[in-house]
Formats: sequence, structure tokens, C-alpha cells
Amino acid sequence: MEKKVGGQTVIFSSPVGILATSSIVGQKESEGPLGHLFDVVEPDAMFGTKSWEKAESKFAQAAVSICEKKSGLSMADFDYVIAGDLLNQSTGSIYGLRNTNRPYFGIFGACSAMGEGMSLGAMLIDGGFAQNVIACASSHFCSAEKQFRFPLEMGSQRPPTSSWTVTGSAAVALTKSQTDVAITAATTGKMVDLQIKDANNMGAAMAPAAADTIVAHLKDTQRPPKYYDAIITGDLGYIGSELLLQLTAKEGYDISSVHKDCGIEIFDKEKQNTNAGGSGCACSGVVFSAYFYEELKKGAINKILFVPTGALMSPTSVQQGETIPSIAHAVAIENTQGGLV
Amino acid sequence: MEKKVGGQTVIFSSPVGILATSSIVGQKESEGPLGHLFDVVEPDAMFGTKSWEKAESKFAQAAVSICEKKSGLSMADFDYVIAGDLLNQSTGSIYGLRNTNRPYFGIFGACSAMGEGMSLGAMLIDGGFAQNVIACASSHFCSAEKQFRFPLEMGSQRPPTSSWTVTGSAAVALTKSQTDVAITAATTGKMVDLQIKDANNMGAAMAPAAADTIVAHLKDTQRPPKYYDAIITGDLGYIGSELLLQLTAKEGYDISSVHKDCGIEIFDKEKQNTNAGGSGCACSGVVFSAYFYEELKKGAINKILFVPTGALMSPTSVQQGETIPSIAHAVAIENTQGGLV
Repeated sequence: MEKKVGGQTVIFSSPVGILATSSIVGQKESEGPLGHLFDVVEPDAMFGTKSWEKAESKFAQAAVSICEKKSGLSMADFDYVIAGDLLNQSTGSIYGLRNTNRPYFGIFGACSAMGEGMSLGAMLIDGGFAQNVIACASSHFCSAEKQFRFPLEMGSQRPPTSSWTVTGSAAVALTKSQTDVAITAATTGKMVDLQIKDANNMGAAMAPAAADTIVAHLKDTQRPPKYYDAIITGDLGYIGSELLLQLTAKEGYDISSVHKDCGIEIFDKEKQNTNAGGSGCACSGVVFSAYFYEELKKGAINKILFVPTGALMSPTSVQQGETIPSIAHAVAIENTQGGLV
Repeated sequence: MEKKVGGQTVIFSSPVGILATSSIVGQKESEGPLGHLFDVVEPDAMFGTKSWEKAESKFAQAAVSICEKKSGLSMADFDYVIAGDLLNQSTGSIYGLRNTNRPYFGIFGACSAMGEGMSLGAMLIDGGFAQNVIACASSHFCSAEKQFRFPLEMGSQRPPTSSWTVTGSAAVALTKSQTDVAITAATTGKMVDLQIKDANNMGAAMAPAAADTIVAHLKDTQRPPKYYDAIITGDLGYIGSELLLQLTAKEGYDISSVHKDCGIEIFDKEKQNTNAGGSGCACSGVVFSAYFYEELKKGAINKILFVPTGALMSPTSVQQGETIPSIAHAVAIENTQGGLV
């Protein structure tokens, strides 16, 4: 197959295999509708450390270590590690993965990290630069609240538009070898800024970026939305998802029958008091790793467009009255055995 | 030529052209030994904005815009923009480049950003995913001091080991087309942590990472240090450079006759009171763009190994007593016309 590059989309010359995925989450995530699917549950939010930041690093470290084991490879077989998170200067990933002893590309795409990492990883493999790559993303409810909103100790009221940052980490091992589930295409997002300023309404800030990337992908590939069994955004939640459906419909694409959102899937809104839904780099990561990837492997679904979404603000930019640019990176993932079982 | 991948190093199947570079700096940088070489000098540290962070974004925006003009291409010709900086959640790059309307990969490698961006950009082009890529890195003395050390208003004394963050930004336009100066190889760094804890001694923290990547490159390619006219680290400064020479010598590589450091080149230590030297993502970026790239184009030098270096801590990690992991990414850049003029 020839590599095709058009618009923002790359169709890989041969599908880039997914060798294994891993997920580790906190207590609250384990109590949600997907709780029984995650590889490991760590009930201690501090993960035995003295800070939430150190705990987040341990989540990232654990995700990579579990993924390494599940892949059947050893760390030395991975040509690159690519990772990102939400913390200042990406220390969740850096301190968690500093001992991997592998060539390392740090990325920053906020909660789109898993999409960016899988896209770059697939390009490095399809481009001939790597045999195996591991991509990782992490987030932590407590470190994210401290970083972006208010210290938890203040007991601030959470507005209905607010989302709940997922505590956990996911890793995905990509390979040149053939596997049942593989990445077939990637559409790299542009930054989109629709002048949203409310750091408690990430869904609204990210929906335009998700719409932009999904429409670009469908146009570039000339595929109807139904080509996919599911088009899965990262963490738009209830409010952002509604906006997304409106925005894509405006562009002539009705994705309502295939759209899913990891932020909606991970928590039970009523029972878990999570308002607009789950968010954070780990949200799309762990939901893909534990749920959608397994469904693809089983052949319960055969083609998905996985679209992690990120809100690209900092506490400082918000305090300085800036709007919130966003980005979404899409990865097409298919069961390459073909045919619905 | 065939693509070669060995150890941490990739030798590209055909050299990835450098179409243009750009540099914009602040007043202090313009008063240094290379001051006359930069494309633009912006004497206002606030760049007409209300904050140092917003100013840094304007530096990044300007660097990309100047590079676009010098390249003879328009923004729409660039398949990807890759950028990184030091600020929390990479807002220097994000707010500066949010209107480029191009597929965007955010990276975080601290002051190694230009090395990471050029490496990934070259891989995307050589891998067949892009015709043209623009890589950008920025930093700002005032925003960096506020972020990592003390508010300037405190007037803290700067220890002799401290470096001076360069205010400015650089961009590099890469292309598949043949040009006189091109990237021939890239060695991606591993994180190295030699347990340095002093956030005022970045040189010491980064030297082991620089040594690790340089030695890996020389081993992978079986080249002696003298293969290069210059091996140029990003911002080790005086103290870090001395350590680097010791560390590489220990591994059997005497690089003393070819080693240069952008942090040493950019300021006049005695007259400018810059202690250990210049630092920041922009340091290696602007020195490469304005000086070494032009020397390569003229044929005054023909082969360099450009090794931007980054210290991967955050203010939070330092306050929590963590050590400072570091990383260095090497890019081999050659005048492909060959032969010393």
C-alpha cells in the first residue's frame, strides 16, 4: 500500500500495529461503569508518595511498566518513548519515565497527549525510524485541580460545566510487526480558539477543535462518518459533546449515531457527581486502552476514529484574561482482520 | 542513500534541507558578541504587551513569521508546526502560534526544544509525511525567572553558577527539497539524572545528558569528534562545558578542540554580567539560526553536530526536593556542497 498524504491526514503505507495497551486508575475511576476493565487500580491517591505530583509520576511509571510486560518486549526493545501530561514542565511524565533509559520525546498537547503520542509514534514507525515505540499519558485529579483551579482544601463549589480529571495513566505499545489491531491513519489537529475564557468549561473550549479535526479527517479521506463504528472524542463531556454534534452537523457531517466520548463513558454522572464528565490526559488514554482497544481486538467493533482533545491554557494565561485555544489529534484504528464478527 | 538506524541515531535517506532560519532577540542579546547577526532586535522586554508571558508569545510569533518570509514559502506550505518553550503548559509557543492554522505538534524538552523540534521535523519529512516543516523555540529572561526562580522585583543575588535566560525566539524551516545546508542525522537523547538538585546550576545538571548523547552519536556513527568542525551544545555555559569535556574524555572521546557552547557564544561574560552564560530554549535556537547556520551556508564550516540541552525540572519538583533530570538531542547538519572553501 502506498503512503497517502493529503490535507492534515496521513494514511500509513502499512498499518502500524498496536502490540499492547495498559491502564492504571484511581479509586473513583474503578467505581465507574468501566471500573472492572482497568489493568490496575491504585486506591491511594498519593500512591505511597508525599505529593500528588510524585503520585502522578508513579502512575505514568506503572502504566509503561505494565504495558512493557503485556507487550512481551523489554524496555530496551522500544526505540522511543513519547509522553505528555498536564503538569507544569510535564513533570508527570518526566519524573515517572526518567529511568526508562530510552530515547525520549516529551510532548505537550494537554489532554490530547495520547493522540499526539500515538500519531508521532506511528509516523516514526511507518517512516522507518523505529521498530517499536511506547506512548504514555497521565493525569491526576488532585494535581490538576491544584494546578489549574483551586487548592482542594478550599472546598470550592464545582460548577455544572466542570469536568472531573481522571487519576491514572495509560500506555500504548506500537510496533512495525503485524497485529490484529492497528493504526491506519492520523489527522494532526490545528489549534482552534473560539474565544472561550471559562477554565471551568473545557468541553466548550475543546469542541470546536474536535469538530475541526474530525471534519478535516472525513474530508481528507472522503469517508462518511459511518465508515467508523465509533468516532471517539477524548474528554468533551456532556456539554462539549452536544456542541460537537452541532458543529459537525453545520459542516454537513452528522456524526450523532457514531459519536462516543471517553469523558462520558468513564464516570456515572448521577452516582459519581462528576458534572460534565471525565477529563485529563489519562481519560481518553485509559478508556481507549481498557475498553475500545479490547472491543476492537474481539471484533465487537472494527473501525474507530480516536480523537483525544486538549485545552491549551495555563493558570497564568487564564489569570491574564487570555482565551483558551484547543487542539484535537485523530488516529484511525482498525481491526485489520476485517469483517464484523 | 539508505536510511540507517542504529543505537539512538538515524541517518536520513536523503539530507533534510534547511530552507531558512530566523532569530529575534531582546536588547541584552543585541549587545552581545553576536548582536549584529540577529534578524530583528526588540528592545522592549514587554514587546508592547502587558505581561512577560504575552511578550514571549510575540517573540515566537515573530520568529515564525520572519522565517516564513525568508523561506519564500507561505504558512500554508508548511505541513506541520512543531514548537516548545519553558513556560507552564507551553503557552509561549501556543499563544504565539495559535493563529498559524497549521497542524501543530507541541513538544516539551525544556531548552532542548530546538533539537527535539528539528529532529522530529526531519523525521516527518524523511519519513514521507511532510514536504515542509517549521520548528520554533522561545524563551524570555523575565518570564523564566518568574517561573523558575524568584520574581525579578525581589532583586535576588544571582550565584556565579546561574545562567542568563535568553530573551528571544528562533525558527527553522525544513524542507524535502535540496538546499546547501541540510540535516543528515539525528540522535535522540535519553533522560539522564545525576542527582543535581541546584536549580541555579543548570550547566552541571545538563552536562551529563549532553555527554551521553554526544558519545552515543559518535559511537552509533563510528565517527571521531573531528569529523565535525564543531560540536555545539545548547546552553551548558562555562561550568557545564568544563564538566562536559571531562565526562566525554572519560568515555574516550576528546572533544575539546571542536566543542562550542551557544550559552558561551551569546554573551560577553565580563561586560554583560551573565555569570555562567546564556540559557533558555531561544539560546541555542538564535545562535544556531543567526551564526552557525550562516557559517555553514558560507562554507566557513562544513559539518556540525548541534546538541541543544534541556534541564527537565519544574518549580514544583524543585520545591519538593527532586533532582533535575536532563536531556540533549543531537542533530548533524552539513553543507552538502562539500569541501572546505
